[in-house]
Amino acid sequence: MTEGRKIEVCLTPLLLPLYQLEDKLVVVIDVLRATTAICMGFEHGVQSIRPVATPEESLALKSQGYLAAAERNGQVVDGFDFGNSPFAYMNGKVKGKKVALTTTNGTKAIQLSASAREVLIGSFVNLQVVVDYLAKRPEDVLLVCAGWKDNFNLEDTLFAGAVVEQLAVKQQISCDAALAAKLLYEKAKKDLFGFIRHSSHYQRLAKMGIEEDIKLCMTLNLSRSLPVLRGEELHAH
Amino acid sequence: MTEGRKIEVCLTPLLLPLYQLEDKLVVVIDVLRATTAICMGFEHGVQSIRPVATPEESLALKSQGYLAAAERNGQVVDGFDFGNSPFAYMNGKVKGKKVALTTTNGTKAIQLSASAREVLIGSFVNLQVVVDYLAKRPEDVLLVCAGWKDNFNLEDTLFAGAVVEQLAVKQQISCDAALAAKLLYEKAKKDLFGFIRHSSHYQRLAKMGIEEDIKLCMTLNLSRSLPVLRGEELHAH
Repeated sequence: MTEGRKIEVCLTPLLLPLYQLEDKLVVVIDVLRATTAICMGFEHGVQSIRPVATPEESLALKSQGYLAAAERNGQVVDGFDFGNSPFAYMNGKVKGKKVALTTTNGTKAIQLSASAREVLIGSFVNLQVVVDYLAKRPEDVLLVCAGWKDNFNLEDTLFAGAVVEQLAVKQQISCDAALAAKLLYEKAKKDLFGFIRHSSHYQRLAKMGIEEDIKLCMTLNLSRSLPVLRGEELHAH
Repeated sequence: MTEGRKIEVCLTPLLLPLYQLEDKLVVVIDVLRATTAICMGFEHGVQSIRPVATPEESLALKSQGYLAAAERNGQVVDGFDFGNSPFAYMNGKVKGKKVALTTTNGTKAIQLSASAREVLIGSFVNLQVVVDYLAKRPEDVLLVCAGWKDNFNLEDTLFAGAVVEQLAVKQQISCDAALAAKLLYEKAKKDLFGFIRHSSHYQRLAKMGIEEDIKLCMTLNLSRSLPVLRGEELHAH
Protein backbone atom coordinates (compact mmCIF):
# COMPACT_ATOMS: atom_id res chain seq x y z
CA MET A 1 0.00 0.00 0.00
CA THR A 2 1.24 3.44 -0.92
CA GLU A 3 1.72 5.58 2.17
CA GLY A 4 -0.01 8.90 2.37
CA ARG A 5 -2.39 8.66 -0.54
CA LYS A 6 -5.83 10.07 0.14
CA ILE A 7 -8.70 7.81 1.11
CA GLU A 8 -11.91 9.81 1.21
CA VAL A 9 -15.60 9.04 1.63
CA CYS A 10 -18.35 10.97 -0.17
CA LEU A 11 -21.44 10.38 1.99
CA THR A 12 -24.07 11.14 -0.66
CA PRO A 13 -24.11 11.85 -4.44
CA LEU A 14 -25.20 15.42 -3.64
CA LEU A 15 -21.72 16.02 -2.19
CA LEU A 16 -19.89 14.73 -5.31
CA PRO A 17 -19.29 18.24 -6.72
CA LEU A 18 -17.00 18.86 -3.70
CA TYR A 19 -14.52 16.27 -4.98
CA GLN A 20 -12.08 16.07 -7.86
CA LEU A 21 -12.71 12.72 -9.50
CA GLU A 22 -10.33 12.80 -12.47
CA ASP A 23 -7.25 11.15 -10.94
CA LYS A 24 -9.05 8.93 -8.48
CA LEU A 25 -10.21 5.38 -8.16
CA VAL A 26 -13.90 5.65 -7.27
CA VAL A 27 -15.84 2.85 -5.63
CA VAL A 28 -19.62 3.25 -5.93
CA ILE A 29 -21.56 1.72 -3.05
CA ASP A 30 -25.27 0.90 -2.92
CA VAL A 31 -25.38 -2.03 -0.53
CA LEU A 32 -29.21 -2.28 -0.45
CA ARG A 33 -29.30 -3.45 -3.19
CA ALA A 34 -27.93 -2.28 -6.54
CA THR A 35 -24.21 -2.84 -6.10
CA THR A 36 -24.81 -6.13 -4.30
CA ALA A 37 -26.97 -7.29 -7.21
CA ILE A 38 -24.33 -6.18 -9.72
CA CYS A 39 -21.56 -8.08 -7.92
CA MET A 40 -23.70 -11.21 -7.68
CA GLY A 41 -24.60 -10.85 -11.36
CA PHE A 42 -20.95 -11.00 -12.41
CA GLU A 43 -20.37 -13.86 -9.96
CA HIS A 44 -23.13 -15.68 -11.85
CA GLY A 45 -21.85 -15.02 -15.33
CA VAL A 46 -23.61 -11.88 -16.56
CA GLN A 47 -21.79 -10.54 -19.63
CA SER A 48 -22.26 -6.83 -18.86
CA ILE A 49 -24.55 -4.45 -16.96
CA ARG A 50 -25.43 -1.05 -18.35
CA PRO A 51 -26.57 1.50 -15.75
CA VAL A 52 -29.24 3.78 -17.21
CA ALA A 53 -31.18 6.69 -15.78
CA THR A 54 -34.79 5.72 -16.44
CA PRO A 55 -37.04 2.66 -16.90
CA GLU A 56 -37.75 3.90 -20.44
CA GLU A 57 -34.05 3.74 -21.34
CA SER A 58 -33.85 0.26 -19.88
CA LEU A 59 -36.85 -0.94 -21.94
CA ALA A 60 -35.52 0.68 -25.12
CA LEU A 61 -32.37 -1.44 -24.91
CA LYS A 62 -34.39 -4.67 -25.13
CA SER A 63 -34.37 -4.38 -28.92
CA GLN A 64 -30.57 -4.49 -28.77
CA GLY A 65 -30.62 -7.78 -26.89
CA TYR A 66 -30.47 -6.53 -23.33
CA LEU A 67 -32.48 -7.89 -20.42
CA ALA A 68 -34.33 -4.90 -18.98
CA ALA A 69 -34.27 -4.35 -15.19
CA ALA A 70 -35.76 -1.46 -13.22
CA GLU A 71 -36.32 -0.65 -9.55
CA ARG A 72 -37.92 2.37 -7.91
CA ASN A 73 -38.56 2.84 -4.20
CA GLY A 74 -37.55 -0.70 -3.39
CA GLN A 75 -39.88 -2.42 -5.90
CA VAL A 76 -39.65 -3.84 -9.39
CA VAL A 77 -41.15 -1.29 -11.80
CA ASP A 78 -44.39 -2.46 -13.44
CA GLY A 79 -43.72 -4.18 -16.73
CA PHE A 80 -40.20 -5.37 -15.83
CA ASP A 81 -39.18 -8.93 -15.05
CA PHE A 82 -36.72 -7.93 -12.37
CA GLY A 83 -35.19 -5.01 -10.48
CA ASN A 84 -32.28 -5.00 -8.06
CA SER A 85 -32.92 -8.05 -5.90
CA PRO A 86 -29.60 -9.93 -5.86
CA PHE A 87 -31.45 -13.24 -6.10
CA ALA A 88 -32.75 -12.28 -9.58
CA TYR A 89 -29.09 -12.25 -10.67
CA MET A 90 -28.25 -15.62 -9.12
CA ASN A 91 -30.75 -17.97 -10.77
CA GLY A 92 -29.00 -18.53 -14.10
CA LYS A 93 -31.21 -16.20 -16.12
CA VAL A 94 -28.58 -13.49 -16.55
CA LYS A 95 -25.74 -15.87 -17.49
CA GLY A 96 -24.06 -14.72 -20.70
CA LYS A 97 -26.54 -11.85 -21.08
CA LYS A 98 -26.31 -8.09 -21.20
CA VAL A 99 -28.51 -6.31 -18.64
CA ALA A 100 -29.77 -2.71 -18.71
CA LEU A 101 -30.49 -1.57 -15.13
CA THR A 102 -31.99 1.52 -13.54
CA THR A 103 -32.39 1.91 -9.76
CA THR A 104 -33.42 4.63 -7.31
CA ASN A 105 -29.92 5.46 -6.13
CA GLY A 106 -27.12 3.22 -7.34
CA THR A 107 -27.17 3.65 -11.10
CA LYS A 108 -27.32 7.44 -10.71
CA ALA A 109 -24.25 7.42 -8.48
CA ILE A 110 -22.38 5.32 -11.05
CA GLN A 111 -23.19 7.78 -13.84
CA LEU A 112 -22.21 10.81 -11.71
CA SER A 113 -18.84 9.18 -11.03
CA ALA A 114 -18.05 8.43 -14.67
CA SER A 115 -15.27 11.05 -14.96
CA ALA A 116 -13.05 9.21 -12.44
CA ARG A 117 -9.91 7.39 -13.58
CA GLU A 118 -11.68 4.16 -12.76
CA VAL A 119 -15.20 3.44 -11.43
CA LEU A 120 -15.46 0.23 -9.45
CA ILE A 121 -18.47 -1.41 -7.82
CA GLY A 122 -18.35 -2.37 -4.16
CA SER A 123 -20.58 -4.08 -1.65
CA PHE A 124 -20.10 -6.34 1.35
CA VAL A 125 -20.35 -9.35 -0.96
CA ASN A 126 -17.07 -8.34 -2.69
CA LEU A 127 -15.34 -6.42 0.14
CA GLN A 128 -12.12 -8.43 0.08
CA VAL A 129 -11.77 -8.16 -3.70
CA VAL A 130 -12.22 -4.38 -3.53
CA VAL A 131 -9.69 -3.97 -0.72
CA ASP A 132 -7.11 -6.24 -2.36
CA TYR A 133 -7.38 -4.35 -5.64
CA LEU A 134 -7.14 -0.88 -4.09
CA ALA A 135 -4.20 -1.94 -1.93
CA LYS A 136 -2.17 -2.71 -5.07
CA ARG A 137 -2.87 0.62 -6.73
CA PRO A 138 -1.18 3.96 -5.97
CA GLU A 139 -4.03 6.35 -6.81
CA ASP A 140 -6.13 8.33 -4.35
CA VAL A 141 -9.39 6.59 -3.49
CA LEU A 142 -12.88 8.04 -3.20
CA LEU A 143 -15.63 5.81 -1.79
CA VAL A 144 -18.99 7.11 -3.06
CA CYS A 145 -22.07 6.19 -1.04
CA ALA A 146 -25.19 6.14 -3.22
CA GLY A 147 -27.33 6.89 -0.16
CA TRP A 148 -31.11 7.11 -0.27
CA LYS A 149 -32.59 9.77 -2.56
CA ASP A 150 -29.48 11.93 -2.25
CA ASN A 151 -29.30 11.69 1.54
CA PHE A 152 -27.02 9.82 3.92
CA ASN A 153 -27.65 6.18 4.70
CA LEU A 154 -26.10 3.86 7.20
CA GLU A 155 -25.43 0.71 5.18
CA ASP A 156 -23.38 2.37 2.42
CA THR A 157 -21.40 4.32 5.03
CA LEU A 158 -20.67 1.08 6.90
CA PHE A 159 -19.25 -0.51 3.78
CA ALA A 160 -17.11 2.56 3.13
CA GLY A 161 -15.91 2.25 6.73
CA ALA A 162 -14.99 -1.39 6.17
CA VAL A 163 -12.82 -0.43 3.20
CA VAL A 164 -11.18 2.42 5.13
CA GLU A 165 -10.48 0.16 8.09
CA GLN A 166 -8.72 -2.42 5.95
CA LEU A 167 -6.97 -0.02 3.58
CA ALA A 168 -5.76 2.75 5.88
CA VAL A 169 -4.06 0.62 8.49
CA LYS A 170 -0.78 2.48 8.43
CA GLN A 171 -1.82 6.01 7.61
CA GLN A 172 -3.49 9.07 9.04
CA ILE A 173 -7.08 9.57 7.83
CA SER A 174 -7.52 13.18 6.79
CA CYS A 175 -11.17 12.98 5.73
CA ASP A 176 -13.72 13.30 8.55
CA ALA A 177 -16.31 11.26 6.66
CA ALA A 178 -13.80 8.42 6.24
CA LEU A 179 -12.98 8.61 9.95
CA ALA A 180 -16.66 8.55 10.93
CA ALA A 181 -17.38 5.66 8.54
CA LYS A 182 -14.51 3.64 10.00
CA LEU A 183 -15.69 4.27 13.58
CA LEU A 184 -19.23 3.21 12.68
CA TYR A 185 -18.01 0.05 10.98
CA GLU A 186 -15.87 -0.86 13.99
CA LYS A 187 -19.00 -0.59 16.11
CA ALA A 188 -21.12 -2.63 13.66
CA LYS A 189 -18.83 -5.32 12.34
CA LYS A 190 -19.48 -8.00 14.94
CA ASP A 191 -23.11 -8.20 13.83
CA LEU A 192 -23.70 -6.30 10.62
CA PHE A 193 -27.20 -7.61 10.05
CA GLY A 194 -28.27 -6.94 13.63
CA PHE A 195 -26.82 -3.43 13.39
CA ILE A 196 -28.53 -2.57 10.13
CA ARG A 197 -31.93 -3.49 11.53
CA HIS A 198 -31.85 -0.05 13.18
CA SER A 199 -31.45 1.73 9.86
CA SER A 200 -34.23 3.57 8.04
CA HIS A 201 -33.68 1.60 4.84
CA TYR A 202 -34.00 -1.74 6.62
CA GLN A 203 -37.33 -0.64 8.01
CA ARG A 204 -38.40 0.54 4.56
CA LEU A 205 -37.42 -2.72 2.83
CA ALA A 206 -38.49 -5.08 5.61
CA LYS A 207 -42.05 -3.86 5.15
CA MET A 208 -41.82 -5.18 1.58
CA GLY A 209 -40.92 -8.65 2.84
CA ILE A 210 -37.40 -8.79 1.48
CA GLU A 211 -35.49 -9.61 4.64
CA GLU A 212 -33.66 -12.42 2.84
CA ASP A 213 -32.33 -9.87 0.37
CA ILE A 214 -31.02 -7.74 3.22
CA LYS A 215 -29.32 -10.70 4.91
CA LEU A 216 -27.53 -11.54 1.68
CA CYS A 217 -26.54 -7.90 1.16
CA MET A 218 -24.92 -7.78 4.60
CA THR A 219 -22.87 -10.96 4.04
CA LEU A 220 -19.15 -10.67 3.39
CA ASN A 221 -17.28 -12.07 0.40
CA LEU A 222 -19.83 -14.08 -1.52
CA SER A 223 -18.44 -12.79 -4.82
CA ARG A 224 -14.97 -12.72 -6.33
CA SER A 225 -16.01 -10.23 -8.99
CA LEU A 226 -14.82 -6.65 -9.27
CA PRO A 227 -17.18 -4.84 -11.66
CA VAL A 228 -15.62 -1.85 -13.42
CA LEU A 229 -17.16 0.78 -15.70
CA ARG A 230 -15.83 0.68 -19.26
CA GLY A 231 -17.50 3.31 -21.40
CA GLU A 232 -21.17 3.02 -20.60
CA GLU A 233 -21.14 -0.54 -19.31
CA LEU A 234 -19.97 -2.46 -16.30
CA HIS A 235 -17.75 -5.45 -16.97
CA ALA A 236 -15.80 -7.89 -14.86
CA HIS A 237 -12.37 -6.34 -14.15
CA MET B 1 -40.98 14.90 25.60
CA THR B 2 -43.51 14.27 22.89
CA GLU B 3 -43.35 10.66 21.71
CA GLY B 4 -42.83 10.02 18.05
CA ARG B 5 -41.91 13.44 16.83
CA LYS B 6 -39.12 13.46 14.25
CA ILE B 7 -35.56 14.17 15.28
CA GLU B 8 -33.38 14.47 12.19
CA VAL B 9 -29.79 15.46 11.47
CA CYS B 10 -28.77 17.32 8.31
CA LEU B 11 -25.07 16.53 7.96
CA THR B 12 -24.10 19.49 5.76
CA PRO B 13 -25.82 22.66 4.46
CA LEU B 14 -25.66 21.19 0.95
CA LEU B 15 -28.26 18.62 2.06
CA LEU B 16 -30.69 21.25 3.43
CA PRO B 17 -32.87 21.23 0.27
CA LEU B 18 -33.80 17.63 1.17
CA TYR B 19 -35.66 18.82 4.30
CA GLN B 20 -38.87 20.70 4.97
CA LEU B 21 -37.93 23.44 7.44
CA GLU B 22 -41.20 25.32 7.84
CA ASP B 23 -42.72 23.54 10.82
CA LYS B 24 -39.48 22.56 12.48
CA LEU B 25 -37.25 23.73 15.28
CA VAL B 26 -33.81 23.98 13.69
CA VAL B 27 -30.60 23.99 15.70
CA VAL B 28 -27.60 25.30 13.75
CA ILE B 29 -24.29 23.78 14.83
CA ASP B 30 -20.79 25.08 14.07
CA VAL B 31 -18.81 23.87 17.06
CA LEU B 32 -15.42 25.08 15.75
CA ARG B 33 -16.08 27.95 16.32
CA ALA B 34 -18.98 30.15 15.23
CA THR B 35 -21.83 28.78 17.33
CA THR B 36 -19.55 28.37 20.34
CA ALA B 37 -18.50 32.02 20.00
CA ILE B 38 -22.14 33.10 19.65
CA CYS B 39 -23.21 31.21 22.79
CA MET B 40 -20.29 32.64 24.76
CA GLY B 41 -21.11 36.12 23.46
CA PHE B 42 -24.63 35.97 24.91
CA GLU B 43 -23.25 34.50 28.12
CA HIS B 44 -21.06 37.62 28.31
CA GLY B 45 -23.78 40.14 27.63
CA VAL B 46 -23.74 40.80 23.90
CA GLN B 47 -26.98 42.56 22.90
CA SER B 48 -27.42 40.86 19.51
CA ILE B 49 -25.41 39.12 16.77
CA ARG B 50 -26.28 39.58 13.13
CA PRO B 51 -25.07 36.80 10.82
CA VAL B 52 -24.05 38.24 7.45
CA ALA B 53 -22.73 36.64 4.27
CA THR B 54 -19.58 38.68 3.57
CA PRO B 55 -16.88 40.71 5.33
CA GLU B 56 -18.08 43.74 3.32
CA GLU B 57 -21.57 43.46 4.82
CA SER B 58 -20.08 43.16 8.27
CA LEU B 59 -17.96 46.31 7.77
CA ALA B 60 -20.88 48.24 6.32
CA LEU B 61 -22.84 47.74 9.54
CA LYS B 62 -20.18 49.57 11.56
CA SER B 63 -21.82 52.88 10.67
CA GLN B 64 -25.00 51.61 12.36
CA GLY B 65 -23.17 50.97 15.61
CA TYR B 66 -22.25 47.33 15.15
CA LEU B 67 -18.92 45.78 16.05
CA ALA B 68 -17.69 44.11 12.87
CA ALA B 69 -16.38 40.52 13.05
CA ALA B 70 -15.20 38.30 10.19
CA GLU B 71 -13.50 34.94 9.86
CA ARG B 72 -12.40 33.01 6.77
CA ASN B 73 -10.49 29.72 6.72
CA GLY B 74 -9.94 29.81 10.46
CA GLN B 75 -8.40 33.29 10.62
CA VAL B 76 -9.58 36.82 11.39
CA VAL B 77 -10.06 38.64 8.08
CA ASP B 78 -7.58 41.51 7.51
CA GLY B 79 -8.94 44.80 8.76
CA PHE B 80 -11.23 43.25 11.41
CA ASP B 81 -10.67 43.34 15.17
CA PHE B 82 -12.01 39.86 15.73
CA GLY B 83 -13.48 36.81 14.06
CA ASN B 84 -15.01 33.71 15.65
CA SER B 85 -12.62 32.93 18.49
CA PRO B 86 -14.88 32.45 21.53
CA PHE B 87 -12.34 34.28 23.72
CA ALA B 88 -12.95 37.48 21.74
CA TYR B 89 -16.54 37.32 23.00
CA MET B 90 -15.58 36.74 26.64
CA ASN B 91 -13.36 39.71 27.44
CA GLY B 92 -16.03 42.34 28.11
CA LYS B 93 -15.68 44.09 24.76
CA VAL B 94 -18.97 42.84 23.32
CA LYS B 95 -21.04 43.54 26.45
CA GLY B 96 -24.15 45.54 25.55
CA LYS B 97 -23.06 45.76 21.89
CA LYS B 98 -24.49 44.61 18.59
CA VAL B 99 -22.11 42.44 16.54
CA ALA B 100 -22.17 41.76 12.80
CA LEU B 101 -20.47 38.42 12.10
CA THR B 102 -19.50 36.49 8.98
CA THR B 103 -17.75 33.11 9.11
CA THR B 104 -16.71 30.37 6.67
CA ASN B 105 -19.51 27.98 7.56
CA GLY B 106 -21.71 28.90 10.49
CA THR B 107 -23.33 32.16 9.44
CA LYS B 108 -24.20 30.68 6.05
CA ALA B 109 -25.95 27.72 7.69
CA ILE B 110 -27.95 30.12 9.89
CA GLN B 111 -29.14 32.10 6.89
CA LEU B 112 -30.05 28.95 4.92
CA SER B 113 -32.18 27.80 7.87
CA ALA B 114 -34.11 31.04 8.23
CA SER B 115 -37.43 29.64 6.96
CA ALA B 116 -37.75 27.28 9.95
CA ARG B 117 -40.33 27.90 12.66
CA GLU B 118 -37.46 28.73 15.00
CA VAL B 119 -33.69 28.82 14.43
CA LEU B 120 -31.65 28.12 17.54
CA ILE B 121 -27.89 28.10 18.06
CA GLY B 122 -26.23 25.08 19.62
CA SER B 123 -22.75 24.04 20.67
CA PHE B 124 -21.25 21.90 23.41
CA VAL B 125 -21.04 24.98 25.62
CA ASN B 126 -24.86 25.21 25.75
CA LEU B 127 -25.81 21.55 25.21
CA GLN B 128 -27.97 21.23 28.31
CA VAL B 129 -29.90 24.42 27.56
CA VAL B 130 -30.61 23.23 24.01
CA VAL B 131 -31.78 19.80 25.15
CA ASP B 132 -33.95 21.18 27.97
CA TYR B 133 -35.62 23.61 25.60
CA LEU B 134 -36.28 21.06 22.84
CA ALA B 135 -37.63 18.55 25.36
CA LYS B 136 -40.38 20.99 26.33
CA ARG B 137 -41.50 21.65 22.77
CA PRO B 138 -43.68 19.41 20.59
CA GLU B 139 -42.34 20.31 17.14
CA ASP B 140 -40.15 18.13 14.94
CA VAL B 141 -36.46 18.89 15.32
CA LEU B 142 -33.78 19.27 12.64
CA LEU B 143 -30.16 19.54 13.77
CA VAL B 144 -28.19 21.31 11.02
CA CYS B 145 -24.43 20.75 10.94
CA ALA B 146 -22.61 23.69 9.36
CA GLY B 147 -19.76 21.39 8.34
CA TRP B 148 -16.63 22.59 6.58
CA LYS B 149 -17.13 24.27 3.21
CA ASP B 150 -20.35 22.35 2.58
CA ASN B 151 -18.88 18.98 3.51
CA PHE B 152 -19.29 16.71 6.55
CA ASN B 153 -17.30 17.35 9.68
CA LEU B 154 -16.91 15.33 12.82
CA GLU B 155 -17.34 17.92 15.57
CA ASP B 156 -20.71 19.24 14.43
CA THR B 157 -21.97 15.68 13.94
CA LEU B 158 -20.83 14.78 17.46
CA PHE B 159 -22.82 17.64 18.94
CA ALA B 160 -25.88 16.60 16.93
CA GLY B 161 -25.35 13.09 18.32
CA ALA B 162 -25.24 14.44 21.86
CA VAL B 163 -28.61 16.13 21.37
CA VAL B 164 -30.12 13.00 19.79
CA GLU B 165 -28.83 10.83 22.64
CA GLN B 166 -30.40 13.02 25.29
CA LEU B 167 -33.61 13.86 23.44
CA ALA B 168 -34.56 10.55 21.82
CA VAL B 169 -34.32 8.34 24.89
CA LYS B 170 -37.75 6.81 24.53
CA GLN B 171 -38.26 6.77 20.80
CA GLN B 172 -37.21 5.04 17.62
CA ILE B 173 -34.79 7.09 15.52
CA SER B 174 -35.96 7.02 11.91
CA CYS B 175 -33.18 9.18 10.43
CA ASP B 176 -29.95 7.34 9.59
CA ALA B 177 -27.86 10.47 10.05
CA ALA B 178 -29.30 10.95 13.55
CA LEU B 179 -28.55 7.33 14.35
CA ALA B 180 -24.98 7.59 13.08
CA ALA B 181 -24.41 10.86 14.96
CA LYS B 182 -25.66 9.31 18.19
CA LEU B 183 -23.40 6.26 17.77
CA LEU B 184 -20.39 8.48 17.12
CA TYR B 185 -21.15 10.62 20.17
CA GLU B 186 -21.46 7.54 22.37
CA LYS B 187 -18.01 6.53 21.23
CA ALA B 188 -16.55 10.01 21.78
CA LYS B 189 -18.21 11.33 24.89
CA LYS B 190 -15.77 10.03 27.48
CA ASP B 191 -13.03 12.22 26.00
CA LEU B 192 -14.43 14.68 23.49
CA PHE B 193 -11.23 16.68 23.15
CA GLY B 194 -9.09 13.58 22.74
CA PHE B 195 -11.49 12.27 20.14
CA ILE B 196 -11.63 15.46 18.11
CA ARG B 197 -7.84 15.53 17.79
CA HIS B 198 -8.30 12.96 15.03
CA SER B 199 -10.55 15.27 13.01
CA SER B 200 -9.49 17.19 9.94
CA HIS B 201 -10.64 20.50 11.38
CA TYR B 202 -8.60 20.04 14.54
CA GLN B 203 -5.52 19.49 12.44
CA ARG B 204 -6.34 22.56 10.36
CA LEU B 205 -6.89 24.81 13.37
CA ALA B 206 -4.12 23.40 15.55
CA LYS B 207 -1.62 24.52 12.93
CA MET B 208 -2.85 28.06 13.58
CA GLY B 209 -2.03 27.74 17.28
CA ILE B 210 -5.57 27.88 18.58
CA GLU B 211 -5.67 24.73 20.65
CA GLU B 212 -7.09 26.67 23.61
CA ASP B 213 -10.04 27.67 21.44
CA ILE B 214 -10.67 24.05 20.55
CA LYS B 215 -10.52 22.93 24.18
CA LEU B 216 -13.11 25.52 25.11
CA CYS B 217 -15.31 24.56 22.16
CA MET B 218 -15.34 20.93 23.31
CA THR B 219 -16.34 21.79 26.88
CA LEU B 220 -19.89 21.13 28.02
CA ASN B 221 -22.27 23.65 29.52
CA LEU B 222 -20.23 26.82 29.97
CA SER B 223 -23.16 28.94 28.81
CA ARG B 224 -26.79 29.19 29.91
CA SER B 225 -27.74 31.13 26.79
CA LEU B 226 -29.99 29.89 24.00
CA PRO B 227 -29.49 32.21 21.02
CA VAL B 228 -32.47 32.39 18.68
CA LEU B 229 -32.90 34.07 15.28
CA ARG B 230 -35.45 36.91 15.31
CA GLY B 231 -35.73 38.54 11.91
CA GLU B 232 -32.14 39.02 10.81
CA GLU B 233 -30.53 38.98 14.25
CA LEU B 234 -29.70 36.51 16.95
CA HIS B 235 -30.95 37.36 20.43
CA ALA B 236 -31.01 35.60 23.78
CA HIS B 237 -34.16 33.43 23.92
